[in-house]
Amino acid sequence: MSRISIIGTGNMARAIGGLAVAGGNTVQIIGRDQTKAADLAKTLGGNATAGGLGAVPAGDIVILALLHADVVPVVTDYGDRLAGKVIVDISNPFNAAVDGLAIPEGTSVAQEVAKVAPASASVVKAFNTIFGVVLEKGRPLDVFLAGDDQSAKEKLSEFIATLGLRPLDVGGLSMAHWLEGAGLLVMGLARHGMGSFDFALGAAVPG
Amino acid sequence: MSRISIIGTGNMARAIGGLAVAGGNTVQIIGRDQTKAADLAKTLGGNATAGGLGAVPAGDIVILALLHADVVPVVTDYGDRLAGKVIVDISNPFNAAVDGLAIPEGTSVAQEVAKVAPASASVVKAFNTIFGVVLEKGRPLDVFLAGDDQSAKEKLSEFIATLGLRPLDVGGLSMAHWLEGAGLLVMGLARHGMGSFDFALGAAVPG
Repeated sequence: MSRISIIGTGNMARAIGGLAVAGGNTVQIIGRDQTKAADLAKTLGGNATAGGLGAVPAGDIVILALLHADVVPVVTDYGDRLAGKVIVDISNPFNAAVDGLAIPEGTSVAQEVAKVAPASASVVKAFNTIFGVVLEKGRPLDVFLAGDDQSAKEKLSEFIATLGLRPLDVGGLSMAHWLEGAGLLVMGLARHGMGSFDFALGAAVPG
Repeated sequence: MSRISIIGTGNMARAIGGLAVAGGNTVQIIGRDQTKAADLAKTLGGNATAGGLGAVPAGDIVILALLHADVVPVVTDYGDRLAGKVIVDISNPFNAAVDGLAIPEGTSVAQEVAKVAPASASVVKAFNTIFGVVLEKGRPLDVFLAGDDQSAKEKLSEFIATLGLRPLDVGGLSMAHWLEGAGLLVMGLARHGMGSFDFALGAAVPG
């Protein structure tokens, strides 16, 4: 079981937090709005607690469930209070038309996070190819993850397994760029080939 | 049923050609090496024929089963002989380390093909996320496709359905960039999370 902090109180925080509590993990919800954080912690039940934005997160794994534009500023603000943490970026930096990325080519939100995070922290990209509504109820699901620190990926993978999901390593942190692109593919599939938002991308051995 | 020409005699030509013959389509194999093209056509059986590189392809759908660096030069050489065709680019422009793309950011092999193809032709990116060995034997499989011409995507989708595969539209041709990135993700999964080359990426409604 893992100790996790989730920064954010939106639908991804609720989805991951709910699975985390059900999986027996220790969960802390951190929000700019203390009332919203306390409400979400109460909704999640179990041992979930609420924390204020800015204190040292209680979790060893810190999940950034924020709008993509807020991710780097929040990590910058936290500074050394994220020392030694496994920082998980789950954002999708879509442009306004959701047909391209709002982040320069050759990088990714996750790579930008790594640039401002403490040297002792490790950044992993994960969860961004899964719709919140699917995460809340669907099984089985594959959680793709990318990062340069094998030990951080293993810690996150242990946590993901407690959620009843399958962690699938795609490689180093530079692959976060292509995972963010896969977020676009998932949106494209929802709007075209699948015509719905009830599916997830996965890897399967056919036959 | 469709009339297709496949330019190339490698493993993807054999995999797609084999499924195409089994699906009752009219198949032409075009190769630089006439003997290899004739051999592959014979191996495929059915009504498969061989054609020489440079003649007008017999198929309405022309699948470019070439190494990525050869795709644009071959389409350029063909010029007006590809007028009116649905041109299918299946290439993966991997760099030597297979951890990035060998094509500039902001474009894709498919988009570069569209720049040199006749105006009356339509370019669709498809098949590049599937390993040849999986394509040859696995079911069910999702074939992701991207293109700007809806009619061309419908023609290709009809053909894909005859192969017993599911065509899944991801959007316009600019999405080919992200499909090429998904090719990298598939390689990353093979080397890391999956640890094998016997799987395919797909979209599924869980539960």
